[in-house]
Amino acid sequence: MSSPRRILGIDPGSVRTGYGIVDVRGNAVAAVAWGVIRLDGEDSFPGRLEKIQRELSGLIQLHRPTEASVEKIFLSKNPSSALKLGQARGAAIVTCRTHGIEIHEYSAKEIKAAATGYGAAPKDQVAGMVARLLGVRGPVPADASDALAIAFCRAVTRTLPR
Amino acid sequence: MSSPRRILGIDPGSVRTGYGIVDVRGNAVAAVAWGVIRLDGEDSFPGRLEKIQRELSGLIQLHRPTEASVEKIFLSKNPSSALKLGQARGAAIVTCRTHGIEIHEYSAKEIKAAATGYGAAPKDQVAGMVARLLGVRGPVPADASDALAIAFCRAVTRTLPR
Repeated sequence: MSSPRRILGIDPGSVRTGYGIVDVRGNAVAAVAWGVIRLDGEDSFPGRLEKIQRELSGLIQLHRPTEASVEKIFLSKNPSSALKLGQARGAAIVTCRTHGIEIHEYSAKEIKAAATGYGAAPKDQVAGMVARLLGVRGPVPADASDALAIAFCRAVTRTLPR
Repeated sequence: MSSPRRILGIDPGSVRTGYGIVDVRGNAVAAVAWGVIRLDGEDSFPGRLEKIQRELSGLIQLHRPTEASVEKIFLSKNPSSALKLGQARGAAIVTCRTHGIEIHEYSAKEIKAAATGYGAAPKDQVAGMVARLLGVRGPVPADASDALAIAFCRAVTRTLPR
């Protein structure tokens, strides 16, 4: 039997960074924790990046994921948004790597396909399937649901030939 | 007498990240170390961010700067470049903060004005003055020179009313 896998999915953003943690046991994948790191209360942009680092470090120390995943870069049309997103993403990736956790990237299409079988599925459909597949009840914030979808994609993709 | 200040200037980039370290003793500012972290040999983008973190952490442990500075965000017209730059910048800022080092931001105009007295000075003029003011001889790579200029700006700006 292979050692248990625990995957941290991250949906980085400079206003809200979503996270979702799933366990993989054989063929079963189940949600362990999820939530949103809110960054709009920080008084500086470096302060936001530090909060991403601090909160993710805390989550990593608490839940001890064995691997992590993020969505492949979404190309915004707006360079200003791209710079902010990039910094949040860089902070999240570096935090995982400083804890020795490998981070894997999946495209939006791969993430949607993993949850619904269709790479262009609408957001609601993806969120609904993620909740069902991971056994999550009650409302989940959008950023946390996206992060769970990213973690789920990693959970089911590693075993497939790529 | 105030405690000695040692400033780490960083010019983040996803292909090359420049750094420059200066000491402030009374009214004198002198270069201590400078260089370029080359990232094009890494086989993945997260690997580049990790290298920024690893090399900057090593420099911080070696030289023990008391503060750090970066250029304020330069708004690229290209969202793809902005995302890459943003991630490199986020990695650099978070690395400083994890070592407890405050990071300060200065605009290109402030950095040029600190070195030359003119906020729209050409790059060559800024590089020439930085080398003279910091007592640096011999060729300095462009990214390292930019980083020294950023450190120098912080060195001379803190004592002025802002």
